[in-house]
Amino acid sequence: MKPAGPLPPDYAAAPRLTLAGFDHAHWIERAGGTTPLFVYDMTVVADRLARLRADLPPGVAIHYAVKANPFGDLLDALAPTVDGLDVASAGELAMALDRVPAERISFAGPGKRDVELEAAIAAGATINLESEGEAERALAIAARLDRRPRLAVRVNPDFELRGSGMKMGGRASPFGVDADRVPALVRRVRDAGADWRGFHIFAGSQSLDTDAIVESQAATLALAADLTERSGAVPPLVNLGGGFGIPYFPGDTPVDTHGIGAALAQAIGNVRSILQDTEFALELGRWIAGQAGVYLTRVVDRKRSREETFLVTDGGLHHQLAASGNFGTVVRRNYPVALAARMNAAPDETVSIVGCLCTPLDRLADRVALPRAEVGDVIAIFCAGAYGLSASPAAFLGHPQPPEILALPAQT
Amino acid sequence: MKPAGPLPPDYAAAPRLTLAGFDHAHWIERAGGTTPLFVYDMTVVADRLARLRADLPPGVAIHYAVKANPFGDLLDALAPTVDGLDVASAGELAMALDRVPAERISFAGPGKRDVELEAAIAAGATINLESEGEAERALAIAARLDRRPRLAVRVNPDFELRGSGMKMGGRASPFGVDADRVPALVRRVRDAGADWRGFHIFAGSQSLDTDAIVESQAATLALAADLTERSGAVPPLVNLGGGFGIPYFPGDTPVDTHGIGAALAQAIGNVRSILQDTEFALELGRWIAGQAGVYLTRVVDRKRSREETFLVTDGGLHHQLAASGNFGTVVRRNYPVALAARMNAAPDETVSIVGCLCTPLDRLADRVALPRAEVGDVIAIFCAGAYGLSASPAAFLGHPQPPEILALPAQT
Repeated sequence: MKPAGPLPPDYAAAPRLTLAGFDHAHWIERAGGTTPLFVYDMTVVADRLARLRADLPPGVAIHYAVKANPFGDLLDALAPTVDGLDVASAGELAMALDRVPAERISFAGPGKRDVELEAAIAAGATINLESEGEAERALAIAARLDRRPRLAVRVNPDFELRGSGMKMGGRASPFGVDADRVPALVRRVRDAGADWRGFHIFAGSQSLDTDAIVESQAATLALAADLTERSGAVPPLVNLGGGFGIPYFPGDTPVDTHGIGAALAQAIGNVRSILQDTEFALELGRWIAGQAGVYLTRVVDRKRSREETFLVTDGGLHHQLAASGNFGTVVRRNYPVALAARMNAAPDETVSIVGCLCTPLDRLADRVALPRAEVGDVIAIFCAGAYGLSASPAAFLGHPQPPEILALPAQT
Repeated sequence: MKPAGPLPPDYAAAPRLTLAGFDHAHWIERAGGTTPLFVYDMTVVADRLARLRADLPPGVAIHYAVKANPFGDLLDALAPTVDGLDVASAGELAMALDRVPAERISFAGPGKRDVELEAAIAAGATINLESEGEAERALAIAARLDRRPRLAVRVNPDFELRGSGMKMGGRASPFGVDADRVPALVRRVRDAGADWRGFHIFAGSQSLDTDAIVESQAATLALAADLTERSGAVPPLVNLGGGFGIPYFPGDTPVDTHGIGAALAQAIGNVRSILQDTEFALELGRWIAGQAGVYLTRVVDRKRSREETFLVTDGGLHHQLAASGNFGTVVRRNYPVALAARMNAAPDETVSIVGCLCTPLDRLADRVALPRAEVGDVIAIFCAGAYGLSASPAAFLGHPQPPEILALPAQT
């Protein structure tokens, strides 16, 4: 038997899985009656954002990273509740422009094509420049369009976020400009007449180490202050990145946003004299949406093989690649999983839950203890709200695209 | 510096990358002029199939596993040249039925839903039964439809294919029925009046160990003969599986199909007395299509970070997940890669080739030696013809779907 990850507290207490106040069966029916599907609980998103707002110092903005989950209904509901949308392609830019004014959008990403730079400049979104070469392309396109581009500089910091699942600083990187070359680039874009928007400094993501996040934010602020002095210009905005992880695996615990907020207030105080007119923002995707999502899949077959029991489902890695252990993880571990109709029942047996794909990679849970499940029962895989469907090979093996549904409470 | 995988011999000799007799620039233009894109060279597919036919004993059928690459134009060209199409979903079944008669189609997969079983039975395709439970569901659906179902039994063999990238035998498995329970299941479906089609025995995939494949095929035939004796019925077809790998990584060498064919002839001779009226088939996907495909992506930025050089491209893991090392591999190694316009030029520098996605996972080649590439140059990632686009998270970060094009020689 192997452990499964911790059930998100929003769902752990009810005897049957309930989202936004309604039984999961309601949402399956609302989505058309078929499985598998994704349900995103907007009450969980709203609750997390409210708690974070309360924990953060006044004036620290919250941005949503669209790449975490670009589902349209979710973006519709989220956009009015955050201060900005951060995008990573022209496709995401178009989605964001449908929902918020361009001045609340920034565009990062190491391989922006000319058509993407042009779309951002024409719309008036901020471009986080990833290199000197990209800066020159952006300036040339702006000149051709006769537009004043909104340009920020993405910095490759000389430190990394400890304990992060994906390190993005402290080493040679395709992301951003090495810190020592940033002042010259700031001068270049300002001298060229661009509307200079500030810095974007991202040291890593999916860290559950609160102390490391605190330390990384302090280092980010100190770096921003240093770059400000060396550039000779106060940045209107410093995007501090995100990096807040969520608990996926056994033993994982949530980050302490209250502690992070308190430390951030102090760290901002330390640099206020230099960054007196600067706005600060956190860019979060996974932390906002990840735990709000549940992937629901039905048992199609129950079979024995050599003393092991397999629950074969109609879902799989084509929808939830990360849960199968095939996206950014070296050692496969189990995501949180439960029988949707018996969330708290005592386990009866050890089973492996596999998907319907004809590949041994397609394993959603490896030898977990569960109450006995029969064909037709619904299994819930949690933490499916970020880097879930959009980060999975949905066309693999030719199955239908699964529905996604936003769960809203009755009064909305 | 890290080595890259070996260039497929079909492409290695020309100074500029040439597919089906035309320069790669021709195919980019034909596909609409944009990058990234996939080009599949039908001459490579046809050449491999012709060599395999010559190497195999007479009467051994070649099936194509649609899941390896379901691109419509490729299926159109492939279907008349193989003896059968093997599918893994109702979606793939529909694609196959558009191209070949149902009696040339078989459907395997551990999580077939009732609607999928119904589609296969109604069409007259063979179902490779994965469990006793699935057998009962199929028989009930056939009775309801008043059709005689074509049923084969997928066997979980008690051995595995050594050296295979994905083992599918020799252990508890969601695939097939443990060999000791197969005779009872054969009797059950025959007694129920089904049109019994035989066995499907798959011990692994992506093996480059010729001896292991030979040994596995001999064991598969011996198992089929044993199951035939114990079942009391001669199988019309034994699908021996596939498992032939292709060289992706440094040091990989191709399997010896001539040696496999000779050994297979002998192994079939050994069981002919029992399996005298049985047809045999190999089911291959990756081996047929993998080396025929090339992913072409353009350099968008050339940047330095801390003494390393990055070529940032307009492609990425959203199209070529496996090349980024995030699909079924534990240790990331480099796929074969080249500058399309200077295939054989001496290397000038060590570079990392990254995709355009805003994630550190998006690395297509790690510190490889290449001739100097500039913005606009086309980079070719090889071995992109199987488990490429359809096995990648194409929606991730909202980029456009890349074109796919089948490269045919001028006379066709």
